Amino acid sequence: MAPPRRIVTLTTDFGLEDGYVGQMKGAALSICSNLQFVDITHHVPPHDVLSGALHLKAAYSSFPPGTVHVAVVDPGVGTARRGVVVRTARYVFVAPDNGLLSLALEDEPVGAAHLLEARHLRRSNVSATFEGRDVFAPAAAWVARGIEVERFGPEAGDLARLELPAFRAEAGRPVSVRALLVDRFGNVTLNVPRRAVQRDDGSAPLPRIRVQTPRATIDELHRTYGDADPGKPFLLFNSADFLEIAVREGRACERLGLRAGDEVVVTVG
Amino acid sequence: MAPPRRIVTLTTDFGLEDGYVGQMKGAALSICSNLQFVDITHHVPPHDVLSGALHLKAAYSSFPPGTVHVAVVDPGVGTARRGVVVRTARYVFVAPDNGLLSLALEDEPVGAAHLLEARHLRRSNVSATFEGRDVFAPAAAWVARGIEVERFGPEAGDLARLELPAFRAEAGRPVSVRALLVDRFGNVTLNVPRRAVQRDDGSAPLPRIRVQTPRATIDELHRTYGDADPGKPFLLFNSADFLEIAVREGRACERLGLRAGDEVVVTVG
Amino acid sequence: MAPPRRIVTLTTDFGLEDGYVGQMKGAALSICSNLQFVDITHHVPPHDVLSGALHLKAAYSSFPPGTVHVAVVDPGVGTARRGVVVRTARYVFVAPDNGLLSLALEDEPVGAAHLLEARHLRRSNVSATFEGRDVFAPAAAWVARGIEVERFGPEAGDLARLELPAFRAEAGRPVSVRALLVDRFGNVTLNVPRRAVQRDDGSAPLPRIRVQTPRATIDELHRTYGDADPGKPFLLFNSADFLEIAVREGRACERLGLRAGDEVVVTVG
Repeated sequence: MAPPRRIVTLTTDFGLEDGYVGQMKGAALSICSNLQFVDITHHVPPHDVLSGALHLKAAYSSFPPGTVHVAVVDPGVGTARRGVVVRTARYVFVAPDNGLLSLALEDEPVGAAHLLEARHLRRSNVSATFEGRDVFAPAAAWVARGIEVERFGPEAGDLARLELPAFRAEAGRPVSVRALLVDRFGNVTLNVPRRAVQRDDGSAPLPRIRVQTPRATIDELHRTYGDADPGKPFLLFNSADFLEIAVREGRACERLGLRAGDEVVVTVG
Repeated sequence: MAPPRRIVTLTTDFGLEDGYVGQMKGAALSICSNLQFVDITHHVPPHDVLSGALHLKAAYSSFPPGTVHVAVVDPGVGTARRGVVVRTARYVFVAPDNGLLSLALEDEPVGAAHLLEARHLRRSNVSATFEGRDVFAPAAAWVARGIEVERFGPEAGDLARLELPAFRAEAGRPVSVRALLVDRFGNVTLNVPRRAVQRDDGSAPLPRIRVQTPRATIDELHRTYGDADPGKPFLLFNSADFLEIAVREGRACERLGLRAGDEVVVTVG
Repeated sequence: MAPPRRIVTLTTDFGLEDGYVGQMKGAALSICSNLQFVDITHHVPPHDVLSGALHLKAAYSSFPPGTVHVAVVDPGVGTARRGVVVRTARYVFVAPDNGLLSLALEDEPVGAAHLLEARHLRRSNVSATFEGRDVFAPAAAWVARGIEVERFGPEAGDLARLELPAFRAEAGRPVSVRALLVDRFGNVTLNVPRRAVQRDDGSAPLPRIRVQTPRATIDELHRTYGDADPGKPFLLFNSADFLEIAVREGRACERLGLRAGDEVVVTVG
């Protein structure tokens, strides 16, 4: 009997202009015809591993168990950096070992992590420049066909980690924090996970938080966009459970002159 | 026996940069694994309900009966505005009740319309900010699993409508008309449905129409781009059966200085 | 018994803003529900047949045998230009006969090529302006349902070809060559196929090549991005097996002031 259709998600910096993503899907379908692709995003800024890691972290757990998550943001393509396949209790991840998986794996304990070394599980005649098509997509397809992660190569040992500074709230003490992402609506995600400042998953009273940017001080924390006054910057915990600066019916990034990578000062309590 | 695979279309203003669309698909697949997604567009300008309604109207009837159409352009997310699921003779629609469905439903009589209130048909732990993932996508997946629209909540009663002014042609009388959309090729869609000026579905003689813009008067109506002279603005009824200003091998919007929302003067006959 | 699910790829200049691609997919699914779409790209510059042909050539052979490749970049839509369906040993191609297929078919001998004339294999009430939805997508769906290409119309005879100048290397003699494409990473593809300068498929020693642009002379040819020094322009054969100018961790197009269509001087040996 045919195995059930397997979901394969894709997170890359390949864009949609050049056909690279289509080639990855074609290579995977050449190995396993029974796949359902879901694009998370292909608009990670080129070579921006942190941005890719954040998008993967925000999205991966929306998918059902058994999903194979492929992520390729790979400034080191063609060099000695390793490719890995990682099994957790619910998912399999395939990616270069450059930290791209490290934020998702914070909440998803690693069951087994192996190197992508087995030549027979790569596309024959591997291009030195397009491992997305020739190594990573085929690995996902072989996983979908039932190949165990142990078959891809030796154990990977410790995986690369991103140096995203942990946020530690101390009552009343200002902490410098990075803006991680700006989304399509101009909302600015800060490196403040909800659980660092609020014990439970959202039903407890909101904490007191103040964010100072060069242009403004923001201290209104709302549960939802609809609770805020139009045009005035406010705070909320977004759908990825990070603190976000938003403006209802407006663009916080332009209003406050903030870009990804900028620092702001956060005070809790 | 497994139910047949169900088509789910998506029309949103989420863009493709941020992974929001992928999260919606993951949430739906977590409920029903047997879905085929088709993206209509995710590039509706943020919060532009009219634009989303026009794209949905242009596209929905290309799909086979049984398709579930999900649309999310939702400036009121997190407020008291209602979510609805609507059954027509051929389709099911899922959307916020803000007029986003109203243009499609002009041609598609409502069989039943219910509120999205049943908590067990939402994603547990609903985010106050991402109902696309937590409410609308799950509703589509439950529909695909065979849940009747009546099970989602009480009858919705009257649905919100957009105030798109009806076009009424009177022979020889100039009427002010809005430019509704500008597409990728620079073609400008006007709020003049074909059926308001031509009795049948396209084989009858073309009516006489004159469009005056601040920069030009256009009175050549062609059946197709290929019938026009290169470089000269002309009129045609486009694939969505609205009147359009186009320039063969050129961009009408720039040539005429027109943008969505601008007014032009149309005279029929 | 149901036929196996058929892969249909799409390469167009329709963009993703306007819902045109969704309409094509809906029209195809209305004929054959058992399709798997893979988008190669919809961001071909409007009406740029050469760019579409290059993207299709780079991508088509990544797909498994049996795939139906649909390409629509069609400045002549609605005129007398022909539509064709082409069977090769491995694939079926559907496109306007304007050269869009000609680069892919260089490596893929034509088994049969027929005109898309049979009215019953088109969408009823064909729009004069959207043959992507009304002619090409339905043709792909009928192929997926098992209709032989001979059934679509008379033999097409000779197909249109693009006049991409062949590159002929003569040792030591400078040749003027066009920049064909600039990709998302700023890499510049030149009209120099690998096989014109290197006998085998990549394991032989690299040839000596010098590329002169108005701003720089580039003579370092590497196997992979990782072998180059950061910031310095170099050459490599890319994943489509064309010569490419790249800058590791940089954008060659901006560094060298090159755009698609520009000419550079190439000397081999």
